[in-house]
Amino acid sequence: MARQESREFYKPERLLAFSDGVFAVAITLLVLDLRLPAEFAGDDDAGLRSALLAMGPKLLIFAFTFLVIGIGWLGHHRKFNYIRQVDGGLLWLNLLYLLFLCLVPFVTSLLSEHSGRTSSIVYAGVMALLMLLSAGLSAYGLRAPYLSAPDLRPGARQDMIVSPFLTGVIFLASAALALGERVSLAHWVLVLIVPASVWFGSRARKIA
Amino acid sequence: MARQESREFYKPERLLAFSDGVFAVAITLLVLDLRLPAEFAGDDDAGLRSALLAMGPKLLIFAFTFLVIGIGWLGHHRKFNYIRQVDGGLLWLNLLYLLFLCLVPFVTSLLSEHSGRTSSIVYAGVMALLMLLSAGLSAYGLRAPYLSAPDLRPGARQDMIVSPFLTGVIFLASAALALGERVSLAHWVLVLIVPASVWFGSRARKIA
Amino acid sequence: MARQESREFYKPERLLAFSDGVFAVAITLLVLDLRLPAEFAGDDDAGLRSALLAMGPKLLIFAFTFLVIGIGWLGHHRKFNYIRQVDGGLLWLNLLYLLFLCLVPFVTSLLSEHSGRTSSIVYAGVMALLMLLSAGLSAYGLRAPYLSAPDLRPGARQDMIVSPFLTGVIFLASAALALGERVSLAHWVLVLIVPASVWFGSRARKIA
Amino acid sequence: MARQESREFYKPERLLAFSDGVFAVAITLLVLDLRLPAEFAGDDDAGLRSALLAMGPKLLIFAFTFLVIGIGWLGHHRKFNYIRQVDGGLLWLNLLYLLFLCLVPFVTSLLSEHSGRTSSIVYAGVMALLMLLSAGLSAYGLRAPYLSAPDLRPGARQDMIVSPFLTGVIFLASAALALGERVSLAHWVLVLIVPASVWFGSRARKIA
Repeated sequence: MARQESREFYKPERLLAFSDGVFAVAITLLVLDLRLPAEFAGDDDAGLRSALLAMGPKLLIFAFTFLVIGIGWLGHHRKFNYIRQVDGGLLWLNLLYLLFLCLVPFVTSLLSEHSGRTSSIVYAGVMALLMLLSAGLSAYGLRAPYLSAPDLRPGARQDMIVSPFLTGVIFLASAALALGERVSLAHWVLVLIVPASVWFGSRARKIA
Repeated sequence: MARQESREFYKPERLLAFSDGVFAVAITLLVLDLRLPAEFAGDDDAGLRSALLAMGPKLLIFAFTFLVIGIGWLGHHRKFNYIRQVDGGLLWLNLLYLLFLCLVPFVTSLLSEHSGRTSSIVYAGVMALLMLLSAGLSAYGLRAPYLSAPDLRPGARQDMIVSPFLTGVIFLASAALALGERVSLAHWVLVLIVPASVWFGSRARKIA
Repeated sequence: MARQESREFYKPERLLAFSDGVFAVAITLLVLDLRLPAEFAGDDDAGLRSALLAMGPKLLIFAFTFLVIGIGWLGHHRKFNYIRQVDGGLLWLNLLYLLFLCLVPFVTSLLSEHSGRTSSIVYAGVMALLMLLSAGLSAYGLRAPYLSAPDLRPGARQDMIVSPFLTGVIFLASAALALGERVSLAHWVLVLIVPASVWFGSRARKIA
Repeated sequence: MARQESREFYKPERLLAFSDGVFAVAITLLVLDLRLPAEFAGDDDAGLRSALLAMGPKLLIFAFTFLVIGIGWLGHHRKFNYIRQVDGGLLWLNLLYLLFLCLVPFVTSLLSEHSGRTSSIVYAGVMALLMLLSAGLSAYGLRAPYLSAPDLRPGARQDMIVSPFLTGVIFLASAALALGERVSLAHWVLVLIVPASVWFGSRARKIA
């Protein structure tokens, strides 16, 4: 199965099982951040209602991050649909991707609790790195000899690199705006990401 | 494998692995809410006994939610038993389903801590949405070309849509009662759900 | 595949994926309980050393519970090695088993924090129920038409019922002793469980 | 399938699913330790920036531990690539390995919070045991009749024992230095581990 003597190849099954596990735990840990303020307790129903309404931005950040991780998982799913064997390099690159994935609940909590400039930079920066690593995984994995889908059109391959790369660039732009003290503009740029990702994905499907 | 040029189809294996992971984490996170009151500490055994007895309603809510998520998992299991390939739309619909699934530990904690009207509406509302999304998944996924079980009787297919839909309607009724300030009636309606689900399920099996 | 018209059979793959997920999360959540006392902070090294030594009993309870869940997983693994198809009844019985499994981190935390009679009864009681449900799963699942291992000797089948049943009886005995105010004797009885399980297991392997 | 009457053999699939689940949960739980100090709250952006900078060592320990668990997972992945069937002994050895894996988030938290001698000894000691158990798993599992890869060169087999063993020895050396009150030297020795593991791995691949 090995094409070069000094390299070992594995089937991707366990890499996928492990990655799916980390995706599932990371995405579910996001909910641990949804907590009413500790000082709130008791059965005052009007108080609970306003406490929940005050959680609105937190719920929005939760749903947004959930969808971004979900899109990341869809992309991971999509590219590994075409990767038939993995080597040490791909295992390491995937591990680095998972490291940043595990940081997502932390930076999400940061953005939830603190609305300022620093948390926006850190959140968008970690997300940008995650997306760029996803593009890197595509670039590395969708070449021979990892790939064995001779029927995959070259345009589809490039798209699986370009889509996460462009999503990463939008996150970088948001981080840059926050760095330049344009925090609310930075947040508006984030709003672009879900529709942009869906559009990138539909373009990708057309090419494939 | 693709029947239409612009659509990509995947095997459902990884969708199931990811979903099972989220189900497993979400259902296990429910236990994090089972905590003795923080002010309780020490080795006073009579105090511990009464603190545990006071946790009775919490344990009931835990067991009830566990069974509802479990029924949800059984339903997911059942419909994907007949779905042989998934496309982007089904992946997104499943992602939305998992988003509401991840909210379940949060709304359960809300209902555990606060016995009023607001928490009952939020809990029953999120549960209703989860069930309606499950019905939607069935409606979307149990059609050609996703489905390849020509031996599945049409009645069974309809049942996999109708069962979660009716369970969702019971949750909606409970939310509406709580909204109309009939909170304890709302809670009694919830009690119907587990036997109703079991009965829907057994009817479904008879049709299949 | 169905032998009776009114019953549906599934392949056990997803039941196992979901159960393995719950086992993995429940066993890993045990570690969340290993925390230094909140009042302890700072860089006083001698203080940290004595705080860790004071955690000795907690670590013991952690390791013991880990091994009992591990033995439970081995037993689950072993019986499903012979179960080729599952029906609704087996899915529900397994769900009930997982419900009690999810309670294990809670009752372990209870026993860790409170050394009295109540926590010993609750811990041993939940563990006993878990073991009896495991015996029930064997009794239900290791019959035709679920089972398709004609080469499995009848002795092995009975043993997979009897081993968890006897382990459950030891836990019941421990709960009864705690109920009768013989708490330290109750704890000594627990010590029997790991070697007894290993011995039951090796006997089972001889019969198989 | 059994070669000796008194021993039962299983396929490794579920052992791997369970282990991958524990790896995924344990590695993701590391992030729960990344928290800003509780006394910090509010929207003071400069304060948040300096609080994050003060978390630098914590983030380093997080990334280091993540990579060490990741390397452990790669090693687990690598050896089970060649193990075709498992018996009770291998199941137990793997369970013991997972027990120490589950302790990793706890000892990482200890090292994050307390920079002294005791936490360094405990962290390096648990990590050393984990690595030695990994070497033991290789030594036990990569022999007949578990192994059925007649094309695996003997050098590769030895390397899969020697690599984790040497990594374990570096951790033991670090623990010994901390025990001898050379704590900062102990921390410098830890820095060796990631490059050493990568180098051991690449040597292993050359032999294979």
